[in-house]
Amino acid sequence: MMKDLNVNLDMSKILREQLRNYIDITDVEFDYILSHFSFKKFKKHQFLIQEGQFVLNDYFLLSGCVKSYYTDEIGKIHILLFAIQDWWITDYEAYYYHKNAKVNIDCLEDTEVLCLSNENREKLCREFHQVEHFFRKKTNRRNVALQNRILSLLSSSAKERYEKFVQDYPSLVQKLPKHIVAAYLGVTRETLSRLYAPNN
Amino acid sequence: MMKDLNVNLDMSKILREQLRNYIDITDVEFDYILSHFSFKKFKKHQFLIQEGQFVLNDYFLLSGCVKSYYTDEIGKIHILLFAIQDWWITDYEAYYYHKNAKVNIDCLEDTEVLCLSNENREKLCREFHQVEHFFRKKTNRRNVALQNRILSLLSSSAKERYEKFVQDYPSLVQKLPKHIVAAYLGVTRETLSRLYAPNN
Repeated sequence: MMKDLNVNLDMSKILREQLRNYIDITDVEFDYILSHFSFKKFKKHQFLIQEGQFVLNDYFLLSGCVKSYYTDEIGKIHILLFAIQDWWITDYEAYYYHKNAKVNIDCLEDTEVLCLSNENREKLCREFHQVEHFFRKKTNRRNVALQNRILSLLSSSAKERYEKFVQDYPSLVQKLPKHIVAAYLGVTRETLSRLYAPNN
Repeated sequence: MMKDLNVNLDMSKILREQLRNYIDITDVEFDYILSHFSFKKFKKHQFLIQEGQFVLNDYFLLSGCVKSYYTDEIGKIHILLFAIQDWWITDYEAYYYHKNAKVNIDCLEDTEVLCLSNENREKLCREFHQVEHFFRKKTNRRNVALQNRILSLLSSSAKERYEKFVQDYPSLVQKLPKHIVAAYLGVTRETLSRLYAPNN
């Protein structure tokens, strides 16, 4: 599954661009930062993270699409979040605090990622104030996404949940299978079809 | 509502202690950091944040207890989170990105807080790598709390939601009015009474 990073120098531009949206780094600094990441390719349906397992990495998506989900005590699947190109995803409680994963993350299509261990993340944050700044800002954003997911779950109207979904994941609306969108919204496929229709 | 910080030097120890759990700072540095906060006292039922309003501050609780809640489109109240002594709380989307608040935060009892504006937070993070580290780590923790709140909302069993609540807020279980706990868990007061009973 692991591939040589050199193959993917082009793709590393996606990470460099994201870093440079927040901080000023030279090419030499970026190459040093990048050397702390590893590259992985996953096929559709493969797992980045499986419930109950140790979580080594945070994943930066270069391509593809994944979903994180939780299986409740009666075996029902609940989708927490999706991630697409240039999003970060992992089970953060397990990643930060060396616990086993509570959620699963699997691929909705073939997916390429850059992996960053928590050890390397802390090392880079110690070495570069700017990298610490970058990760603080990204974590702020994730906080907002999580708060919005909570607000979406608490909304009593399917229409409002659908509108929040379109706002959070504009590029996913047409791309994802309808049954996955329905599971994320907690509605039936019939209800979802009505929401997709115009003038609703 | 605003009081002189000098009155509360004793209380500022709570903040210093929290900072020192993460970073090494001298007393002089702490005093400088503290000078960027203001002190406020709120009475029970007063609001730290009201839906639709501009959000200036993040709040560090010195004493008391607050709840953040969301009112859905049919007027039903949903409790997102509580905060107690040494917790931070605000509407982070509004705070970070200069938007109007989507949630309300009000006091379940008389509450004293230290307020930090986003401008001062960014200033301190620029000036001290260590303060940036502190806020990254605290934001990581908030992420985990939010993820756990999502998992709690997705749990189909009231018992499991109750157990997560006890785990997240051990000191609140006996302190909060039962109807507030029931609203947080999304159960009736009767169901809650059964959950409180032993051997359940």
